[in-house]
Amino acid sequence: MQNTMQKSWTKESLATFLIASLKGISQVLLINNAISGLFILLAITTSSFLLGIMTLLSAFIGTIVGILGGADKESIKQGLFGYNSVLTGIVLTLFLTGPYHWIIALFGAAIAAVFTAAMMHAFKNSGVPILTFPFIILSWMMLLASYRLKEFHLTPTLFPQDLLNWEVDMTGNIDWVEGMFNGIGQIFFLHSTLSGILLFIAVFWAGWKLGLYVIIGNSVALLVSYLLGGEPNLIFMGLYGYNAILTIIAVSAVFNTKSNRFNLFSGIVGACLTVLLTASIATLLLPYGLPALTMPFVLSTWLILSARKVLPRL
Amino acid sequence: MQNTMQKSWTKESLATFLIASLKGISQVLLINNAISGLFILLAITTSSFLLGIMTLLSAFIGTIVGILGGADKESIKQGLFGYNSVLTGIVLTLFLTGPYHWIIALFGAAIAAVFTAAMMHAFKNSGVPILTFPFIILSWMMLLASYRLKEFHLTPTLFPQDLLNWEVDMTGNIDWVEGMFNGIGQIFFLHSTLSGILLFIAVFWAGWKLGLYVIIGNSVALLVSYLLGGEPNLIFMGLYGYNAILTIIAVSAVFNTKSNRFNLFSGIVGACLTVLLTASIATLLLPYGLPALTMPFVLSTWLILSARKVLPRL
Amino acid sequence: MQNTMQKSWTKESLATFLIASLKGISQVLLINNAISGLFILLAITTSSFLLGIMTLLSAFIGTIVGILGGADKESIKQGLFGYNSVLTGIVLTLFLTGPYHWIIALFGAAIAAVFTAAMMHAFKNSGVPILTFPFIILSWMMLLASYRLKEFHLTPTLFPQDLLNWEVDMTGNIDWVEGMFNGIGQIFFLHSTLSGILLFIAVFWAGWKLGLYVIIGNSVALLVSYLLGGEPNLIFMGLYGYNAILTIIAVSAVFNTKSNRFNLFSGIVGACLTVLLTASIATLLLPYGLPALTMPFVLSTWLILSARKVLPRL
Repeated sequence: MQNTMQKSWTKESLATFLIASLKGISQVLLINNAISGLFILLAITTSSFLLGIMTLLSAFIGTIVGILGGADKESIKQGLFGYNSVLTGIVLTLFLTGPYHWIIALFGAAIAAVFTAAMMHAFKNSGVPILTFPFIILSWMMLLASYRLKEFHLTPTLFPQDLLNWEVDMTGNIDWVEGMFNGIGQIFFLHSTLSGILLFIAVFWAGWKLGLYVIIGNSVALLVSYLLGGEPNLIFMGLYGYNAILTIIAVSAVFNTKSNRFNLFSGIVGACLTVLLTASIATLLLPYGLPALTMPFVLSTWLILSARKVLPRL
Repeated sequence: MQNTMQKSWTKESLATFLIASLKGISQVLLINNAISGLFILLAITTSSFLLGIMTLLSAFIGTIVGILGGADKESIKQGLFGYNSVLTGIVLTLFLTGPYHWIIALFGAAIAAVFTAAMMHAFKNSGVPILTFPFIILSWMMLLASYRLKEFHLTPTLFPQDLLNWEVDMTGNIDWVEGMFNGIGQIFFLHSTLSGILLFIAVFWAGWKLGLYVIIGNSVALLVSYLLGGEPNLIFMGLYGYNAILTIIAVSAVFNTKSNRFNLFSGIVGACLTVLLTASIATLLLPYGLPALTMPFVLSTWLILSARKVLPRL
Repeated sequence: MQNTMQKSWTKESLATFLIASLKGISQVLLINNAISGLFILLAITTSSFLLGIMTLLSAFIGTIVGILGGADKESIKQGLFGYNSVLTGIVLTLFLTGPYHWIIALFGAAIAAVFTAAMMHAFKNSGVPILTFPFIILSWMMLLASYRLKEFHLTPTLFPQDLLNWEVDMTGNIDWVEGMFNGIGQIFFLHSTLSGILLFIAVFWAGWKLGLYVIIGNSVALLVSYLLGGEPNLIFMGLYGYNAILTIIAVSAVFNTKSNRFNLFSGIVGACLTVLLTASIATLLLPYGLPALTMPFVLSTWLILSARKVLPRL
């Protein structure tokens, strides 16, 4: 035992660990590629150094939970224990404040990996991937806890609102180019053009087809949300786009296993659905002041991937 | 391929398609019978011509999604891809307004069929039918989206209310006969006695036993909701009855496969439960201004059908 | 048939029935022991004679539903059809008022057993126990129904609140000893020290290790909720402790099947999680005026038990 432990701390193992963690970062975009992960980390770090550190630490923690818990090695290596931790770490760093919010964020990252394992078990016979469901539910729960626990300080950007007096705010500038970069940036809560470019590099590195889908998915979402009368401020900040991007990647590329399908069409339908779901889920969460996170992506993708088992041409 | 396509557009296939669509309409009442579907369509059309057209188009769309998606032919023929589309089309036609609400309704009908396929997959090992769950969740989501998307106009009959200032309104006339016809009418949001009579014909055509259960289920619901102090206005508009009717049909007839059971008793218990669930779900939805739709039926029926696997005499 | 029925009413069967019912009471604490059940019943009866009677009747009803429904005898004997009925009976007795609330409570107890059967079926391939989920959902539904049905009178202690104007109340005395007894008492909504002592006897009777876990779980919860800035009033009334107690019993003892695990550590993590979940769920339920009941325990325990299937060392 002692022997194995020592052996496991060789340079080789450290490299494996680092690669698994970087893949964990790339898995947020459903990509299994350490270099892409590195570009994403760079995109985050150029926006905020602290957030970059938290991203890397969260990825480490998720991977460590997988290793210590004794998970299947292949899953760990693909970064499947990392991506929910990464997102949870980021969200709790951004939406909580106070001196100890980073401890809460890292604790959240650890629990996200446990939750990931739990969902893997629950979904093992479903033929459908768990996506970012653990991150979403866990983050919502941690943010909600702030209303009851004084040491959890919510940022003032999140606050409950009353649906009875709710008015859609139609002010705001129309800026299609910014909308293009903000869509992919929003996946990691980033707003700078440089970050957007680095994220595009991360995606194109993993495959030109993925990059193309990102552009199509985001364009569809910008157009549909604009035509249906969404709030311009939200549209061009990319808040209608990021779920569409993830959905088209999942539906048309990553989880598409047959060639004789309308798979681009299904991805576009999925992207349209995320626009509706973004609007619905934002409404549902309004009284609690919570952000929709990637729930529209998860629901839309589950819908289409499950339906494919019964409608094989979808 | 070309050849098969041409062949599939013969008169025979058109008849099959029409029958499947009409059965889709009848499946709302858990009936697998095209003539019953025709009577239901008639009941809807006598109330509103537009709603009749939308019902038929929605049934067509659901069936087409099943065919194009490559679903199992037997399921398509029984109308199993139609009924959630029919209900979604009706609800979105009724509760949305504006010049394009019918496009949204038909889009909703298509997604309802995809959602139906997804649920069929998710429930395939459960031994429990999916019922109208896809319709309910999809309709709620589409209605909620209206708070964020300007082109989705909600009818003024749906509006969020505050539970803190909520008062039960005990005014309203007691009219048991109207309550009898309104119960079955409410399944399709119909309020005329003629529609009620046509719906009864549809049910009795499919089997006198079904018709009897409709009467028993509705009577139980009227009585129980009245005794427990429900709002008279809601009771006699059939709003406590329609879920009870669907539940007793499902529990005591359609999904009842053994004879040595308390199956009428179970259906009556299920009907009573829908009264409680109607009250609970209406309360839960109050802050969002959403209607309960057939959720009480779905939950009550799932409860009893699942319990039967462990309590076989139920 | 007649013959079997008569035979089933011998003295021996009556003893079996009584033992199953008492075990049903003990199963609330995840204990399969009739003597422990008797001590729990005593603890409840010393607090309120009516509540004691309702507890026993609810246990009887749950067991009877199992027998009449034709459930697996082993499950009935272990009290698995009783504990959700017991809790539902207690909650509806305590939180509803009016002349007929005890009828509603006993009806609730019967439905709780049906719901238990339904969940057993739904979870049969999950490898995870249903815990008190049926009790929680059913009780919430019955309490919510009171807003719509005049004959359901809610106690004034439950009332909807507005999250927009919500303030955490940091007043209240710090009393660690009281917190110790109130934690275990809260599982049955009991507040007297005598009841607390009788409950400790019930647990220690079933095994000294269980008793130790109760103390550890409650201490962890008291400490963590205090450090995170929970409301002192709630902490020392045991409202952060009871879910932690149940979770550590479930995770570290009852559903722990392997020895080479960090099982005490996992139980402590689970207990910490219940503190966060208690805060989150209380926030979610605030607008509806519902109590969190044992939902934090159920979610935390499901999380860890499911995760263990993928992370076997947890």
